[in-house]
Amino acid sequence: ELLAAVIAYFQPKPLAGSRVLITAGPTCEPIDPVRVITNRSSGKTGYALAQAAYEYGATVQLVSGPTALACPPGVERIPVQTAVQMRDAVMQRVDDADIFIAVAAVADWRVENQSSEKLKKKDGQPPALHFVQNPDILAEVAARPDAPWCVGFAAETTLDPEMAQEKRRRKGVPMLIGNLAQHVMDADHTTVELFDDEGMINLGSGEKLEIARRIVQEIAQRYVRPH
Amino acid sequence: ELLAAVIAYFQPKPLAGSRVLITAGPTCEPIDPVRVITNRSSGKTGYALAQAAYEYGATVQLVSGPTALACPPGVERIPVQTAVQMRDAVMQRVDDADIFIAVAAVADWRVENQSSEKLKKKDGQPPALHFVQNPDILAEVAARPDAPWCVGFAAETTLDPEMAQEKRRRKGVPMLIGNLAQHVMDADHTTVELFDDEGMINLGSGEKLEIARRIVQEIAQRYVRPH
Repeated sequence: ELLAAVIAYFQPKPLAGSRVLITAGPTCEPIDPVRVITNRSSGKTGYALAQAAYEYGATVQLVSGPTALACPPGVERIPVQTAVQMRDAVMQRVDDADIFIAVAAVADWRVENQSSEKLKKKDGQPPALHFVQNPDILAEVAARPDAPWCVGFAAETTLDPEMAQEKRRRKGVPMLIGNLAQHVMDADHTTVELFDDEGMINLGSGEKLEIARRIVQEIAQRYVRPH
Repeated sequence: ELLAAVIAYFQPKPLAGSRVLITAGPTCEPIDPVRVITNRSSGKTGYALAQAAYEYGATVQLVSGPTALACPPGVERIPVQTAVQMRDAVMQRVDDADIFIAVAAVADWRVENQSSEKLKKKDGQPPALHFVQNPDILAEVAARPDAPWCVGFAAETTLDPEMAQEKRRRKGVPMLIGNLAQHVMDADHTTVELFDDEGMINLGSGEKLEIARRIVQEIAQRYVRPH
């Protein structure tokens, strides 16, 4: 923690006075009291971005799904389980945010007919699960009249620049960071590309904290603080 | 580790010379390269049993689904992800096991139509997932002509002694340990009951390692080593 504090002290402070809201980690959608649908997100990229934003002078709130990670020093963590809980935690705080970075791997669907009792297996018949689509937190935040400056993430198994730009425009956000899911999940290294109105920038490969610092620098260059 | 070694040294050794095979943790069934169906098992009960069996003199192999736990000293861990991998790892080792303790929270179903690419959400339509029942590892082991002495676990949200005995007989095992899923999941404490041909014994509440030692003592009293 002391080392982290010293490193943070000597970083430039382009985000001094800014308030950054970040989502990270997987969400965990219950099927019954025991079973869940989740995803392989470790939360490392989102936590690295929270640490980098804090180093660069921002006040950081981190709405996090279940992970085994320690909260970075100086960052306020709000733990949640489901996509709906994550949405509610974000909406409660978004009015106070200047920048919103949606890194969490939010489950696209949840089970509508959750059981309050553990489902039994009977005669080899699987349970009939009815899925319902989860809220699109990033699109909902970006559509607000007083929206913060928004950054999306796309973790795909195949990354097509045209699809990434299409996703960025569909979400209505000025910046989207793309990475390859099979390279990034649970790894300490990542390779990312940045998409904005100007096109694509390759931010290279490296440790997640190093890459997170590059992303936060790019955000700081583009984000114009309201006065 | 030194303390654990000292404690292990001074425990009685009723299982000296016995080989114990244990499954622990959740299994993790992929939907696509990112999404999974899993359950809230922390693996703590199975790891505590592995430690207790080692303390009591057994050679212990621990086939474990994904957990954040450290492997107990002296125990050999075989990491797996899915129920099918867990079954294969057990079947490769069961001929050399005297006692088999099935603690893992094996997913009852897996997705038959796994996607090698991340599924896209389109027009709010959820993916059509076809489920297929997973192997019943405990029943398969217990049905072998040279079966080891088998112990099952039942983590239910409501625990009915008659249902527990029915499950024990259906699996064909001499001992079943029952606990309440909502009390035990991810907790350090547990409350368990033992079911065998004689009926039910309340083994009480306590730290998982303490309860694990009581369970292993009960196993050692009942298990008669072949000569």
